[in-house]
This record gives sequence, C-alpha cells and structure tokens, in this order.
Amino acid sequence: MSSFTHIRVIGAGLIGTSMALGLKSAGYQISIEDEDPQSEAIAQSLVGQSKEGNLPELIVVATPISAIPNLVFELANRFPTAIVIDIGGLKSEVIAKVEEFPDIAARFCSTHPMAGREISGPLAARGDLFEGRIWISTPTRFSNSLSVARASEVIAALGGKEIVLSAKEHDKAIAGISHLPQIVSSLLSATLIDISDRDIALAGQGLKDVSRLAASSPNLWGELLHGNSASVRTFLKIFSSHLEDLSTSLQNDDLRKTEEILAIGRENHARIPGKHGGKRRDYWFLPIVIEDKPGQLAKIFDACAVVGVNVEDLAIEHTPGQESGLVTLALSKGDSEKLFTQLLTEGWKVHQPRESVG
Amino acid sequence: MSSFTHIRVIGAGLIGTSMALGLKSAGYQISIEDEDPQSEAIAQSLVGQSKEGNLPELIVVATPISAIPNLVFELANRFPTAIVIDIGGLKSEVIAKVEEFPDIAARFCSTHPMAGREISGPLAARGDLFEGRIWISTPTRFSNSLSVARASEVIAALGGKEIVLSAKEHDKAIAGISHLPQIVSSLLSATLIDISDRDIALAGQGLKDVSRLAASSPNLWGELLHGNSASVRTFLKIFSSHLEDLSTSLQNDDLRKTEEILAIGRENHARIPGKHGGKRRDYWFLPIVIEDKPGQLAKIFDACAVVGVNVEDLAIEHTPGQESGLVTLALSKGDSEKLFTQLLTEGWKVHQPRESVG
Repeated sequence: MSSFTHIRVIGAGLIGTSMALGLKSAGYQISIEDEDPQSEAIAQSLVGQSKEGNLPELIVVATPISAIPNLVFELANRFPTAIVIDIGGLKSEVIAKVEEFPDIAARFCSTHPMAGREISGPLAARGDLFEGRIWISTPTRFSNSLSVARASEVIAALGGKEIVLSAKEHDKAIAGISHLPQIVSSLLSATLIDISDRDIALAGQGLKDVSRLAASSPNLWGELLHGNSASVRTFLKIFSSHLEDLSTSLQNDDLRKTEEILAIGRENHARIPGKHGGKRRDYWFLPIVIEDKPGQLAKIFDACAVVGVNVEDLAIEHTPGQESGLVTLALSKGDSEKLFTQLLTEGWKVHQPRESVG
Repeated sequence: MSSFTHIRVIGAGLIGTSMALGLKSAGYQISIEDEDPQSEAIAQSLVGQSKEGNLPELIVVATPISAIPNLVFELANRFPTAIVIDIGGLKSEVIAKVEEFPDIAARFCSTHPMAGREISGPLAARGDLFEGRIWISTPTRFSNSLSVARASEVIAALGGKEIVLSAKEHDKAIAGISHLPQIVSSLLSATLIDISDRDIALAGQGLKDVSRLAASSPNLWGELLHGNSASVRTFLKIFSSHLEDLSTSLQNDDLRKTEEILAIGRENHARIPGKHGGKRRDYWFLPIVIEDKPGQLAKIFDACAVVGVNVEDLAIEHTPGQESGLVTLALSKGDSEKLFTQLLTEGWKVHQPRESVG
C-alpha cells in the first residue's frame, strides 16, 4: 500500500502528463497544473483532475530546467510538509542551487527518467512511457530518507528502474549517451539543406532513424546542451577526431583504415545492452497492403471487431505516386494469428505475422 | 502474364535471397547460387531450388560491387540470350566498365533497391523486403528495350516503385541520403569507446536509433564509401562545418546560435517524406479519446467513411490499466474539420484539430 495518496504534478508537458496518467492508474490521487492554460486543460481532461481534498504529499516539478530551483523553493514553502522531486535532464546546477538551503534540500530529491519522445506536449503523453526504463535519482547532500523513499516509490509505481548517481556522474553520462546522439542527429538533418527534395525522397529507413531526434524542440535542447556544455564539448571533440580520421582514410583511399573505424563503431554499438534495457512489449506485426482511399482502414478494423482482436499500434506507409499503401498492425501473437486468418478469408493482401517490424 | 519464367540469382545475401523469395511467390521459377556453400544451402532451402530445366532468361547479380563487372561479362557470355541486372549500391564505375563492351551492355540494366536491413545474410531475407520501396534503375547507354523492360518487371513483381536515374545522379544522391547517415551512425558508435558500460546502460531509445546502422558490415560499407569517395567527402565537409559551428556556439555560450542550428536540423528533417513522396504534407491532427476495447477504431473509421475523409496516418496511445486510450488521426485540414464535427455529433470525446502533434 502506498504511504501517501495525493501527488501534484507541476508542468503538463510530455513527462509531467505521462507521470500523471501512470500514477493515476497506479491508484494515486493526482492533480496537474501548467502555466499554459491550454496544456493544463488538455492534461486535466486526459488525467481527470482530482477534486482537491487534502494537500499534496508529493510534488513533481516537471518544467524546463531553468524554472526548477525557484519552483522547488516556492513549492517547499507553500507546502511545508510535502516532498518535492523534479525530472530535469541536468543535475549539477539545480542541486547546487537547492543545496544552498539545506532545510529545503532535505525535502527534495532530484530524478531523471530516461524516457521521452521527439514529440512533446500533453497529447503525446502515455502512462506507460516509463515502463522498463531506467530512471536516475540524485539525492542532494541533505535529502532526508522520506524524500529518497518517495522518489523511489514513484519510480517503482511507474515501472521505472532506479539507478542512483551523483549529479556529476549523471551529467557526464548524459552528455555521451543522450546529448551527443541528439547533436549528431540534428547536424545530419541540417546537412539535408544541401540535398534536393527529389533526392531526399529516395531515403530509406536508415536516414529516418538516424535523423529522428532532429524533430526535438530546439529550445528545450539548446538549454540542455548549454547547461552541460563542458561535458558535451568533450564528446564533440572525440566524435570530431573520428570524423577527421575517416575523412583522411577516404581521401587516402585507405580502405583498411576505413573498415577499422567502421568496425570500432560496430563493436561499440554492440555494447548497448539489450535492444531495450527494459522490457519490450511482445507485439507481433501484421503487414497488410491497402488501397489508398477512404474506407480501407474501416474495413480492416471491422475485421478486427469480427474476431475480437485489439490493435495495439498501427503504422501506415505509402509509396510515392502509387495507389496503395502498407499498413502494419501491432498485436498480441494470438491476435495477430486470428486476424491474419480472418483477413485472408476476406481476400486481403496480408503477410504472415512476424515478431519484428524488420 | 510474365514474358519469362526462369530467373537465376547470383549471390545469396540479404538482397539476393529476398528477391528470390519474393519472385518465387510471384510465380517465377528461381535458382539461386553463391560461392559460399553454406549461404547457398540456406538460401536454396529457404527458396526451394527449382530443378533446372530451361536456361535462365534473367540473371540477377546480387554480389558485392567489386565482383559485379566481371560476373556480368562471364554470365552474359555463358547465357548468350539472357538479360543481366545487378542490385549494387553504386553505379558510375560498374556502368562505365560494362559499357566498354556495348554488346554486353545492351543486355544489361543496373538497378538498386532502396531497402535493406542492418543484419545481413540469407537468414535475414524476406520476400516482401521491397514492398512499397523505391527501386532505382540505371540503364547503360547501350541497354536494349528488353533489358530495361525485364528490370521493370522484376521491380514491379516485388512491389518496388521504379525511379530512373543516371549513374551520376544516383551516386550523388546516395552519398547524402545513405552513405552520410551510415558514417554518422558508425562514428557516434565509435565514440562510445570512451564511455563506460555503466553509462551506456543508461541509454534510451535515442542512442539506439541513431546508432542502429553502425551494426552494418564494415567490409560492405568500406567498399561502398571508397567507391563513392568524392561525393561522400563533399557531404562530410558540410557536416563537419555544421559540427564546428555548433562547437563554437557552445564554447561561446551563444544559445541563440545553437538553437538556430538545431532548428535548421528540425526544418530539414521535416523534408523527409513520410508518405506520398515529395514534401511532407501539412497534416492536421485530431486527438480522440477512446475506450480501449475492440470495435472502437472500427467505429471511428465508419465515421470517416460516412463523411468521406481519408486518414493519412494514425497513432494510438494506450495507458495500461486504464480503460481509455488516445487516438490521434492525421488528416488534411478540411478533412480534420469535417471529421471533428461528425465525431462530436456522434458523441465522441474529440479534441479540436491542431496543426502539430505536440
């Protein structure tokens, strides 16, 4: 049983709203607010705002980093018995500022869930966003045991896997495994400025994957990168020297050296654990060829209803200039087989269910 | 009806075996061979080797690039009436070599399917690998109409979308949209050499996506990059100058400039077509709250059919343990308004259409 019931989330962005959704399902009483009235209204309609009876025992600050320290002070004063946690992407500066007030720092524990999406805002929120994800917690020097315990409880309730790091350890690690990939993806996408639309239209999945993060918010990421500038620049230098080595091996037509650099990339890529660190949902994928006109998807979903299967996710791919597209449904294994048989019977061009999108 | 029946595939890698599987399903008689006996045996057991009755009318060379020209000569001589195509990732050099023999070049058409996986070999093969994918064809100066027609027939039979480019156009485009992303992904992964296992274990989906291509074969890619060195180096220089700009803006704490670079990345990322080729359409997004049970989506698509709107894309967000989910439809602006009104009338919890997901 939970040791507390009412959690207030400040900030109805992707993370705040996702936490609110997930914690609501886990049985907590949730209130969520945002300084932007529209975001607040959407989040509250998604989460279903609790009628405020009692004071919040835990407050989650889910705002951009620059706003965190002052909000922590304000909220800790407004709710003198509440514990406060944040979910910001950088730790050193926030923790240093909060530690200037040991009484407040005692009731504060900083955290950072390693989950996100390149789209933001409350509409992108999902209650299971943190399922199986690593969630770093970084207590202050003064954090009391209750604040550390409540942070742990929230992380566990959302399915996260807690790892305790110091602020310095956190920020250095994040520079390499999060900030550098973001930069590389953004710079690759910036390079497309010199490529024609005709050529970009030839792109396969590779370009799409490597450039995916470039859709992220420039403001959010500008703040993160500048807040971690020294560590980020260290990694940019390492990356840059690999880039120079490869340019040189190409210029010298030194195939052996190029292969060696690519092989180092492959070996180190293999060090990234599991495909997913945490648990992956075991979906099966069912590819169906459809005509690109109204009514096709409705018919597929009619078929789903006929055999009583539940579609977990769906992707639609179109072929430029063609009248047909490919729809891939994600389903449980059993459902994928049931639906496959049903669609075959109905005469659809449907492929065998498979375990990966491929 | 097909104008020919027997296709021989030389090279039982991912592409060769996938073509063999797909063409077999499309009704062609297929034989496949590889100089590596194990790959050959796997591919033949997957495809089901045809008993060789008649001579192949079409030969597909699906080997590494360096082997292509000599194989084309050899096979064209061995089967003096057959058409030969290849599926190599570079065109200029292969075509120049084959064109030295106009009689052979007449029976040759070069092609390149824009499909692949970062895992290779016959076991990774899938007959529908090319479904809906762009497939570039590059005739030689001497290619006769039969060779061009057979290449087109094979591409169509595998569900590919043919686009004709010159060798030079092909190689330049590929440098930007395929070779550069590969390099960036490999170099990012190479940078992980300076990151501890503990820190790598913190990685989220971002690092995984951006580094995915680094799992590709260093030998295969070394050959491709060196075979296209001039164009590749041009793009590396552009990328490198963006990298330098960002390093400078970080060093100078010029947040405005950093945001500007990230924004250029985001804008150009948006030029990658999601569907229908060309520029990504300006979709509007319609968020609808649904109960998480079979039949809900069917009802929404029924509503789409009633007002005759075409759903361009769809995302489903589930919250485990909750009785509801959020479906976001992507539609044209006009369609999003029509459907919004219709769904309101039917009593759905639907939000105002908006211009962005976030």
